[in-house]
Amino acid sequence: MSEADRERTAATDAGTGQGADVHQEITSLEGIPALSLDAISSVAYGPEAMLVVLASGGAGALTKIEPITVAIVVLLVILVFSYRQVIQAYPDGGGCYAVSKANLGHGASLLAGAALVVDYVLTVAVSIAAGVAALISAFPRLAADSLPIGLAILAVLTALNLRGLATSARALLLPTAVFVVGIYLVIAAGLLRSHPMAGAEIHTVVPTATTAVGVLLILKAFAAGCSALTGVEAIANDVPAFREPRVRRAMRTEVLLGAILGTMLLGLSVLTVRFHIAPETSQTVLSQITGASVGRGAIYYVIDLSTTAILAIAANTSFGGLPVLASLLARDNLLPHVFGLRGDRPVYRYGVVVLAVLAGALLVAVDVNTNALIPLFAIGVFTGFTLSQTGLVRHWHRDRPRRWAARAALNGLGAAMTAVATAIFVFTKFTSGAWVVVIAIPALILFFTRIDAYYRDVAAEIHLGEVPLKPTSQRSLVVVPVVGVSLLTERALAAALSLGDRVVAVSVQFDDDHAGALRAAWDRWDPGVELVILRPSTRSVVKPTLAYLATFDPKLHPHVLVLIPEVEPRKWRHQILQNQRGVLLAAAVRRNRDDVAVVRMPFRLVRM
Amino acid sequence: MSEADRERTAATDAGTGQGADVHQEITSLEGIPALSLDAISSVAYGPEAMLVVLASGGAGALTKIEPITVAIVVLLVILVFSYRQVIQAYPDGGGCYAVSKANLGHGASLLAGAALVVDYVLTVAVSIAAGVAALISAFPRLAADSLPIGLAILAVLTALNLRGLATSARALLLPTAVFVVGIYLVIAAGLLRSHPMAGAEIHTVVPTATTAVGVLLILKAFAAGCSALTGVEAIANDVPAFREPRVRRAMRTEVLLGAILGTMLLGLSVLTVRFHIAPETSQTVLSQITGASVGRGAIYYVIDLSTTAILAIAANTSFGGLPVLASLLARDNLLPHVFGLRGDRPVYRYGVVVLAVLAGALLVAVDVNTNALIPLFAIGVFTGFTLSQTGLVRHWHRDRPRRWAARAALNGLGAAMTAVATAIFVFTKFTSGAWVVVIAIPALILFFTRIDAYYRDVAAEIHLGEVPLKPTSQRSLVVVPVVGVSLLTERALAAALSLGDRVVAVSVQFDDDHAGALRAAWDRWDPGVELVILRPSTRSVVKPTLAYLATFDPKLHPHVLVLIPEVEPRKWRHQILQNQRGVLLAAAVRRNRDDVAVVRMPFRLVRM
Repeated sequence: MSEADRERTAATDAGTGQGADVHQEITSLEGIPALSLDAISSVAYGPEAMLVVLASGGAGALTKIEPITVAIVVLLVILVFSYRQVIQAYPDGGGCYAVSKANLGHGASLLAGAALVVDYVLTVAVSIAAGVAALISAFPRLAADSLPIGLAILAVLTALNLRGLATSARALLLPTAVFVVGIYLVIAAGLLRSHPMAGAEIHTVVPTATTAVGVLLILKAFAAGCSALTGVEAIANDVPAFREPRVRRAMRTEVLLGAILGTMLLGLSVLTVRFHIAPETSQTVLSQITGASVGRGAIYYVIDLSTTAILAIAANTSFGGLPVLASLLARDNLLPHVFGLRGDRPVYRYGVVVLAVLAGALLVAVDVNTNALIPLFAIGVFTGFTLSQTGLVRHWHRDRPRRWAARAALNGLGAAMTAVATAIFVFTKFTSGAWVVVIAIPALILFFTRIDAYYRDVAAEIHLGEVPLKPTSQRSLVVVPVVGVSLLTERALAAALSLGDRVVAVSVQFDDDHAGALRAAWDRWDPGVELVILRPSTRSVVKPTLAYLATFDPKLHPHVLVLIPEVEPRKWRHQILQNQRGVLLAAAVRRNRDDVAVVRMPFRLVRM
Repeated sequence: MSEADRERTAATDAGTGQGADVHQEITSLEGIPALSLDAISSVAYGPEAMLVVLASGGAGALTKIEPITVAIVVLLVILVFSYRQVIQAYPDGGGCYAVSKANLGHGASLLAGAALVVDYVLTVAVSIAAGVAALISAFPRLAADSLPIGLAILAVLTALNLRGLATSARALLLPTAVFVVGIYLVIAAGLLRSHPMAGAEIHTVVPTATTAVGVLLILKAFAAGCSALTGVEAIANDVPAFREPRVRRAMRTEVLLGAILGTMLLGLSVLTVRFHIAPETSQTVLSQITGASVGRGAIYYVIDLSTTAILAIAANTSFGGLPVLASLLARDNLLPHVFGLRGDRPVYRYGVVVLAVLAGALLVAVDVNTNALIPLFAIGVFTGFTLSQTGLVRHWHRDRPRRWAARAALNGLGAAMTAVATAIFVFTKFTSGAWVVVIAIPALILFFTRIDAYYRDVAAEIHLGEVPLKPTSQRSLVVVPVVGVSLLTERALAAALSLGDRVVAVSVQFDDDHAGALRAAWDRWDPGVELVILRPSTRSVVKPTLAYLATFDPKLHPHVLVLIPEVEPRKWRHQILQNQRGVLLAAAVRRNRDDVAVVRMPFRLVRM
């Protein structure tokens, strides 16, 4: 392994970013499909989430989407510049967990870890629900089957990820381009009209005189709209994915993302007001705007289907991201160590399945209704934003590079605004679903700390970190359970003789004929190994063998190994026909004797 | 182990009998509760089965129960004396499988084994169904819940047997006595009356002029009534259970059983005709007879409940018998060898669960209707009778003891009559359920032969029975995967040094810091064992370890052992937190390398 490779490996490991498996030296432009789809695809549900809230304030309230979107875009700009600084400060990938751990201590890192886990699950659920909504907008007949369709998309993503999905950023470039160009086309065409296209099938409301709209409603709509900002952090999480000069390329992508997302949000909000669009259940707001701007022709279907595709890809990034996060948490003893082995297929699968089950449960719980998930969403993301920015303020204050005060001020502003936003989410949406997250995050933190405490206790008990005595070689005894004289027995005894200072073959026999025949065959063979025949009064194989093992004094025989010869059939279904004796014995020895090791020595059949 | 004990063990193993776990030196009288309840309890459904068939021939046909019962009792007498000879010929327990194998060859033993398996399943199902019917006769309100009640009885029996039921013959003496005395009381009281007791709630039919009753109907009724003879073989199967002189005690019990069963059947058939009893769905025939003879008072309830109890105990004997049979079949390579280990709890459980599932499926299929099971029943039992008797004829002919010709003639008569009866069952009841058994028995035989062929091929491949080369000791290499320096590592290295000629510690590390820290700790410790640090480019632990193992030339290192140190937590739920790395590695080495053995060395935690 070259030094560069090692550095690469180490660097990659530090990132928690979504799409971590996608990177192989991407350019600034490729950074958009590889790392920004989660953010960009949120235009499919963010504006709608605002309208749904505002609709409860009457038709007049709907126009408030414009000023609220402006506020969200201002927040976006601050976040983009904040995250450019995160990229500079953590060029090895500045995931909010890593930044919190480095700057804010253990408690904050637990909070960050829990928030991120919640995030990944919700990203999958919200993206799939929004993708289904886009599909139903184009094909209303599918409305009755929205739950099966959502679960089918989830199943396909799960299956792809279980097989180990390798997506290149370049392959994602085309659908991303179709979607982005399509949305801009919609905005441009819409701005050129004063009325919706004929036959646009949109749900308009008569504009009424502006009535007084409460502050709470505005705050709620703002909170809902902030769901459009989720995913802005992904680029900073995965800086090592970029081609050199990494930091500059990543910063450029961050700005590009901000520009695309900001202009889309502003453009769509203007069209919403111009076309008097109101939310409805059978068609998404984005679908209504598209229909109003370009009509329900071929272009509409291309844009709508690319929306579903982009949302599915955005859901997929979580499948890539959670195992990476889990391995970081496992390395810090906050999750079972098994998650640290994400390179080994079965383990990776474990994380994929957990994520799929949780996201599937959420989809079923809300019946694939995006807007029912919005109150849960964004809390985790914005908690992460706040922690990252706050961590950066500490970072600048401690390291004091050039212009540190200005940098700290910018990140501080970002932290303050996202903290306020988080507080707004929790308070305005607590009863409509946010309580789930408010319970889930502390529960996860408790889970992390319990696991941490366990590993700490184990480390103390095995004296981890202390210098132990030097290991010394002692006499070893190998006990080989045999059933007859065969090639299998010969192989097992050869292995036993190679390993042990003393070898004993032992056989449990239930009747005289078999016992006598075995003794005779053994004597004829004369393998140079003592054979002990046990004749129990019950028909148990395990108990007499255990009793025999108990006759050896542990002091005289500190290392006892039971070597069980086993026939290994070629066909899986033949397993039940073989080795059950060995399986039982191995399990019983393991359960009853801490000081006796068991090795099952396979003899692979070639013909059977 | 004394010589006597050994003989005892060997003898016990040869029996296939029901209630094999019950025997500890029983007397002739105790032989009735211990080994004859299956037979005696069949008076609860045998007469009824006949009446159900006869009822289809009109009211006049019902009186034909008397001559048919006489025919059945004649068959019973022949069977009893035939089985006295079986007891003499096979004092070690003459199960029909053992007798067929010894005298009639492989094919007959396969048939016997399959018939017995079918038998055990049907005995459980029929006994439980009849027990439920007795219960409902006393408490008609329970009729709607007959299936749940039947499955509950099955569940209780299964649970008791899973826990390992130890029943003594003496404990069964009381309910048996209550039942037998009760039935005789019913018969005596009934014979003293000319009319049923008032308020007996029985279903009588007006006697009509005797019309012509077809031969087929008579044969069908005979076949149905023969279900009352099932279980007559059980005593002969389990002769070793008796106190010395075993053979004489067992023969006496057989005659006692024949006398009890024969007089009961005859007495009940007379009362059926006298009281003009016809079958009905809500009450069993035995319940009707009981009511007619002693009224629906306290005595009625005692007799009825003891019927249910006796039937449940009869079902229970199958749970004891099947594992014994399965172990005999396994020893002859006809079932997976795992069934040969019935002394080991988990395996015994396996057989119990299989029996419970099959019997439960039957009960559900027929909705706990005894009479729907009767056509399936008795075929297996009578096939076994025929095989046993035929085997005995061969036995006498070969050994030619005193009066061998007379003995052979008696067994020959028994064989001929039971063979004819079996043929009658199959032909008269094929369409009403017997086809199930006609398919099941050959299917089981095919299953046995496939398993036999498999074991034969394996034996050939491992050169079983040939004298192999002498095993020789060769150089051994022990590879110990380690994660850090601790007491756990020290213990593992000590074991490895004791076992191997050469020991290598190997550690997979993903980043420089951890790798460097481990190297430093290792050097500080200096355990005298080489440490190889692997630095893979992926996050897999398994793949680099396998790749490292592949670097050893199998010729130079014929015996490679991977010794995986593992923390063994005290609490089961902590398992997921530990050892997953070892489990993965062990499975992968097992899957990929036939020539490398794996031992997982447990380090049991005391505090955690």
